[in-house]
Amino acid sequence: MNMEDNIIVELGLRSYPIRIGTGIIRQLGLFVKQQTGASRCVLVSESNVAPLYAEKAMQSLTSASIEAELVEFPAGESNKNIKIFSQILDSIFAINPPIDRKTVIVALGGGVCGDMAGYAAASCLRGLRWIQCPTTLLAAVDASVGGKTGINHKTGKNLIGAFHQPSGVLMDVETLQTLPTEELKNGLAESVKHAAIRDFSLLGFINDNSEMIISAQSNIMIELIARNVRIKAEFVSKDERESSIRAHLNFGHTTAHAIETIAGYGTVGHGQAVAYGMLVACKLAEDKNLVSPNIRQCLVETLKKLEISTEYPGLNFKEVWKLMQHDKKNLDQKVRMVLPTAEGLVEIYDNITETEIEQAIKVLES
Amino acid sequence: MNMEDNIIVELGLRSYPIRIGTGIIRQLGLFVKQQTGASRCVLVSESNVAPLYAEKAMQSLTSASIEAELVEFPAGESNKNIKIFSQILDSIFAINPPIDRKTVIVALGGGVCGDMAGYAAASCLRGLRWIQCPTTLLAAVDASVGGKTGINHKTGKNLIGAFHQPSGVLMDVETLQTLPTEELKNGLAESVKHAAIRDFSLLGFINDNSEMIISAQSNIMIELIARNVRIKAEFVSKDERESSIRAHLNFGHTTAHAIETIAGYGTVGHGQAVAYGMLVACKLAEDKNLVSPNIRQCLVETLKKLEISTEYPGLNFKEVWKLMQHDKKNLDQKVRMVLPTAEGLVEIYDNITETEIEQAIKVLES
Repeated sequence: MNMEDNIIVELGLRSYPIRIGTGIIRQLGLFVKQQTGASRCVLVSESNVAPLYAEKAMQSLTSASIEAELVEFPAGESNKNIKIFSQILDSIFAINPPIDRKTVIVALGGGVCGDMAGYAAASCLRGLRWIQCPTTLLAAVDASVGGKTGINHKTGKNLIGAFHQPSGVLMDVETLQTLPTEELKNGLAESVKHAAIRDFSLLGFINDNSEMIISAQSNIMIELIARNVRIKAEFVSKDERESSIRAHLNFGHTTAHAIETIAGYGTVGHGQAVAYGMLVACKLAEDKNLVSPNIRQCLVETLKKLEISTEYPGLNFKEVWKLMQHDKKNLDQKVRMVLPTAEGLVEIYDNITETEIEQAIKVLES
Repeated sequence: MNMEDNIIVELGLRSYPIRIGTGIIRQLGLFVKQQTGASRCVLVSESNVAPLYAEKAMQSLTSASIEAELVEFPAGESNKNIKIFSQILDSIFAINPPIDRKTVIVALGGGVCGDMAGYAAASCLRGLRWIQCPTTLLAAVDASVGGKTGINHKTGKNLIGAFHQPSGVLMDVETLQTLPTEELKNGLAESVKHAAIRDFSLLGFINDNSEMIISAQSNIMIELIARNVRIKAEFVSKDERESSIRAHLNFGHTTAHAIETIAGYGTVGHGQAVAYGMLVACKLAEDKNLVSPNIRQCLVETLKKLEISTEYPGLNFKEVWKLMQHDKKNLDQKVRMVLPTAEGLVEIYDNITETEIEQAIKVLES
């Protein structure tokens, strides 16, 4: 049986569907046509994905009578910068005949590709429509919902960008078969995060099916992605511009961004960094007497089952603290963190202190 | 008597006031406070404006208890590119303590400054609020209304950018006293354009007061700017994202953008290029039997009174045609132009042909 699922991200006029299925990359052209009516598009893909799926995608677009041009850029978080972004724009504007406001950008790749191509769509001619075709679990469960696009700056992650909702997301879980295990784990860590902030029963689902999940078995992946997307979509629908509750999704991310910057973009995977960040946030919440160590123990248990590291010894808390002060979620120079308050529940806390971070980070030592 | 005027650009939740007066740069701090409540801002200014007005602006901000940092970039249309834009972002992110989502960008300068600083505001942390403080007539009558921000690409003007409405515009007409006459003319050409597309009586006002206008007499400038802003605001309110009637404001601009690109950004002023573009559009409309030469004669008469050139001999129509095909207002590879249909009235025409352009451009020969 080939399961499929279709979830609508409810955002008024900017609502869009997320379609999840097996082998559905072959329907990309029809999907683009249906969602945008476009007769031209630019397929933006990254160097490790294009060789695997660009031809299939281009064929599908052509079959649907959509003229398509491929723009490829070097893969990797370390390339998510203004230099490579500028090269992508150069390639898009070099297309002949020139693109126009009806042209649609299609992002085929992981989170970096979605962020870059989505930001290119936001920026070209002051805003083109775009379709996201994630090929990683992380992109499927995280970046595909909510329209955050952007690039890194040397002083911090995602500091430059735009909110720009796609016109639709098409997720072919077959592409996860070619995904390196380390990459799969990045997405799994975000799934654990969704469980921690909204639905502890998802943690049970992940525990019960961990073997099928690690081997990216298609039907399990469809269910896993759908559950995650529904959680994230709920937050995003309530608060598109992250002025309140959407910030709960940043659980684990303040520390994660700092770790990624310290390690060098791309050295520690985003999901892995989020796993570390969640444990630091749990420990900090324990130190504040908000929760018992039970939550952290549940997370550690699941993370271990997924073979995700829970230790990162030698982290310099002063460096972490400096970078946390740079986080774009901060307001009025106060360091803000999302902390657990119960199973499946988190709250935002301001005025996190250097001493609290120093203490909490020790949880990663052993 | 010190006249003042205050116009609201009606855009629902994104509505904002444009305040026009004499010496009101001294009230910038209060204005920023009133419109945004900010306690921190980044004043972005350009190298030819900052030495004249940055100190006054900084003093006013500080007096209103707003912490302000100055970021200066090299003036000129030729610097409105991704390289300088990237440097502006570097300077903004280098500020310590780091900016946050409540930080407000204040653009102090001409159109280039508004476009760059506004686009920086749109891009930093996925969107900061911003206040525009135009110091040129062109920026006051044109860029200050409608939230178009962006930078040039080597293949065309303003191809990269965002719609990002400011939280308010403060126009001190005293700054026009230090504006080079050539710069003033750029704004006057746009005023003539507003007259041509919406209100021919504005042409009479400009004719009647041309001497006071050329000497930038304060009360006349307040009235001139207010009349222009009201016209532009009307179009923008009806069609914020330029899907229909806002495109009328592009009268003269398709050819103008081509001329600016051919001449090299900054060589022919934007307003001057628009003047040429309007005459080409009029001639093309005459050749199509849409209007009599009377409209063009009225425009030429006023432009001459304002000492704005109406001749640009030697323009290569093949180059113009190639660039017009790149214009971002085109759809489905058809070249689109705004043509006059009566006094104070224009319409959009698609399917402009190479031959029509070749004929019409000859109007600039003599």
